[in-house]
This record gives sequence, structure tokens and C-alpha cells, in this order.
Amino acid sequence: MLCVGLDPDPSRLPEPLDGASDATYRFCTAIIDATADLVCAFKPQIAYFASQRGEDTLERICRYIRDTYPHVVLILDAKRGDIGPTAEHYAREAFGRYGADFVTVNPYLGGDSVEPFLVQPDHGVFVLCRTSNPASGDFQSLLVDGDPVYLHVARRVSREWSRIGDCGLVVGATYPAELAAVRAMAPHTPLLIPGVGAQGGDVDATVAAGQDDRGWGMVINSSRAVLYASGGADFADAARRVAMTTRDDINRGCRR
Amino acid sequence: MLCVGLDPDPSRLPEPLDGASDATYRFCTAIIDATADLVCAFKPQIAYFASQRGEDTLERICRYIRDTYPHVVLILDAKRGDIGPTAEHYAREAFGRYGADFVTVNPYLGGDSVEPFLVQPDHGVFVLCRTSNPASGDFQSLLVDGDPVYLHVARRVSREWSRIGDCGLVVGATYPAELAAVRAMAPHTPLLIPGVGAQGGDVDATVAAGQDDRGWGMVINSSRAVLYASGGADFADAARRVAMTTRDDINRGCRR
Repeated sequence: MLCVGLDPDPSRLPEPLDGASDATYRFCTAIIDATADLVCAFKPQIAYFASQRGEDTLERICRYIRDTYPHVVLILDAKRGDIGPTAEHYAREAFGRYGADFVTVNPYLGGDSVEPFLVQPDHGVFVLCRTSNPASGDFQSLLVDGDPVYLHVARRVSREWSRIGDCGLVVGATYPAELAAVRAMAPHTPLLIPGVGAQGGDVDATVAAGQDDRGWGMVINSSRAVLYASGGADFADAARRVAMTTRDDINRGCRR
Repeated sequence: MLCVGLDPDPSRLPEPLDGASDATYRFCTAIIDATADLVCAFKPQIAYFASQRGEDTLERICRYIRDTYPHVVLILDAKRGDIGPTAEHYAREAFGRYGADFVTVNPYLGGDSVEPFLVQPDHGVFVLCRTSNPASGDFQSLLVDGDPVYLHVARRVSREWSRIGDCGLVVGATYPAELAAVRAMAPHTPLLIPGVGAQGGDVDATVAAGQDDRGWGMVINSSRAVLYASGGADFADAARRVAMTTRDDINRGCRR
């Protein structure tokens, strides 16, 4: 249930690739090759490409994942959220241009903003529910009828928006008690869980709180701890070691 | 206080440009030239470019606005929302790559997700508050201590996030009573108001509800009604006529 996030910061590439031509592509595909047998999904973060005119590179990385590891799920982390006609264009971007299986979306605009992403049965979304950043409570934690807003999101997404299991929820690993509350509200919904590794989330607590009653139902993302495990020529081997440890930590905590 | 939204749908370009090389660029710059003296802002919607590998075209359109009409405000409609390190990359995209003055952002992740957009004093954000789509109430209208969530957004953005007037709010024109409630909560905050024209919002009701006590404080957006005023060779003239009528309707309703 490990997912490796591809957030290639140009200022943090390993030394041997620093300044090399096509460095971002070579870095990401090396990480992909080193970890593909350990993961259920890769999650490229589009902002890191958009800031450096890297859409072509992102397209090639996505195509590489599709062609080389067709069994690995491709989640485009784009956190889109817009009204219907515009959301259709974002859906075309995510599923057509980049060939993603899932895209992350923001719930604030409501159900009709997500529908364009659910037209095809082989595509789906992970909807932001409880995020891992310090100020995430500004609106997510406001109490409505005794429950925080993020639990209202969890309820509505799992019971109304999801029709064929095509909607998951994004819940940060940094608040295990809240992760458990979301799991209780949405017992059968896949949870995309960022925040382990560099962001400080504890794997054992995350797995205990997030797994469903069969011991599955999580996609646990690590980005920086894997990508930047070493800044030297051994960066891919080091990434593999961190990914393997994280994968083993996840599996050890599962009920099944 | 008119803003023209640039949402170039490739299936709706005027007949003379249909299939022409560089059609999107020629269409948008013709609309810009025809309306620049009538508007306070242009608002390109990035999704329409991202769905068709059009980032280069968007860059050229933004540069054209900057170079040719430097007094017109450039708002990138991207509705970004992500945690800090990632939001920094989105800020670089909006302000560096595209040269925008403002970018639209989503409040769901909280204050620290918006801070990277406010680092430079000559840049700012319009934060989604109350959107114009049918399901916008799913979470925006949940009641917290007697007020809907969108009024909590209006309060926090206007009183806490905005430090030098660098945060505005996005409030759809389709609900004038709610627009008035936001204006009452945030008396001095600039409001970006989509939804007049094709989306059905009434200009008179919008202006009556949205203006501040000096008769200013609004950026009223029209996209499709201007862009697609005619599908023939006269599309730019027709766009100008619609824009002028809308501009006059706006000005007629203002207290000043």
C-alpha cells in the first residue's frame, strides 16, 4: 500500500544529475525503476513541473509509468477544483494528456465540480478531506452539528459522490485520531494518506488508524523521504532502501 | 469594474479561425484588443490551455497583455490549493511564468496554503468564497455558529489573511443575497464576481449587492457572453458591443 510521490524539486536533485540535460526525467525514472516492485501507486505532483515549464517532462514520465509498469496505479496530484465546464478541461488534462487513473480534487465547490472526473468508469478521484499542513484546521475543523467539516466531507463523498468506488479521500498521516474518525465514517473508502516520512507522520499509528476491516484500503504516500534519501550517485539505491523499509513497516501493522 | 475571462474552448472558436494555425492565440488577442479599454482586468482560465497542451500559448497571451496593456490587471484563474512547499511552486507558475498580478486560490487547506502567494507585495490572491455552481452549497453553506462556512471564509480572509489588501474574495453573481452578506462581512475587500452573462447572474442585482461604500470594490467577470458573442468574422466587434453594454450596466448601478 506504499505510494511514492514524485515531487522533483530542481534545487534538490542528486549531485550527479545537477545541471545534467533532462535531469528531472532521469531522476524520476530512476526512482520509478528502483521502487516500482514495492509500490501500489506513483503520485506525480504537477506543481513541480508547472513551475519550470515541465509539462512535456511530466507527460513522458507518466507515459514511462504506463508503458513500463502498467499494473501500478497513476495518481496525478493536482488538487483541481472548478465548476463543471472548466472541470471537464481539467479531467481531459489529467486522464487524457497525462493518462492518470486518479486525480486529487478539492471538495470546496461541491459535487457537480467533481462529476466531470467520474464520467469514465476506469477513472476516479481522491477528494481532499483532512490535510496534513499546520493551518488545515482553519475551515476543515469548523464544527457543524457536532462534527468537523472534514467528517461532513468524508460522509458525503463516501455515501453520495462515490458510485462505483470511484471516490477516495485524502487524509494526512499527521493526525492519527482524525484519520481513525474518517475511517469510522467511511469504512470502505480508499484513503490516500500523505504525510509519513519527511512530514513526520508515524507509520504504525497511521496503519492502525487507517486500514479497513480487511486490513486494506490505504495508499500511503512518501515523497521527500524516498526521493532525497541520498544526494549522491547512490540516490536510487538509497530510495529503494527507504521505500522497502516503509513498505515493510506498513505491512507489519496490517491486520490481514 | 468589468473583467473579461479568457476561456478559449477550441470547439467554440469563431468560424474564420476554425482550424487556423495559432487559432487560440489569435482569438484571445483579438478579444483583448477589442475590449482592453473597457476592462479593469483580464482573467485567463488555465484549464482551457492545460487540456490542449497550450501552456506556451497562455504564456504568450499573458505577455501580450503585460506588454500592450500594462495598466490592465492580469488575474490567472487557476484555483490553486496545496500545502506550503508545493504552493511555492504554484506561486512561481502564476507570478513568474505567467506574469500574473493575482491568482485565484481555494481556501480549504487553510491560511498557510495561501501564504506563498503573498510573499511579494505586488502580488495577491482572490480566495474562493461562494461559487456560482448549483452544488456550491454542499459545504459552503454548512452552518457553523449560525453562519454558513462561506461567511467564515469571508471573515478570516478579510480580517486575518489579508495584510496589505492583497486578498480578495470570489463570490458568484448568481446569489445576490449571499453576495450582500459577504459584502457586509468584508466591507473593504475586493470581490471577484463571476457568473454574469452566460451563467445568468443579473448585473443590476450584482452591482447593488457587491459594491463597497464608495461604489467600488468589484471585479465583475464575463467570459462566454463576450467571447462567443458572434461565431462569425465580426466576433471581435460583437465581443466589444457586449463588453460595452455590460460595462455601462455596471457603471449605471454604482453609487459614486
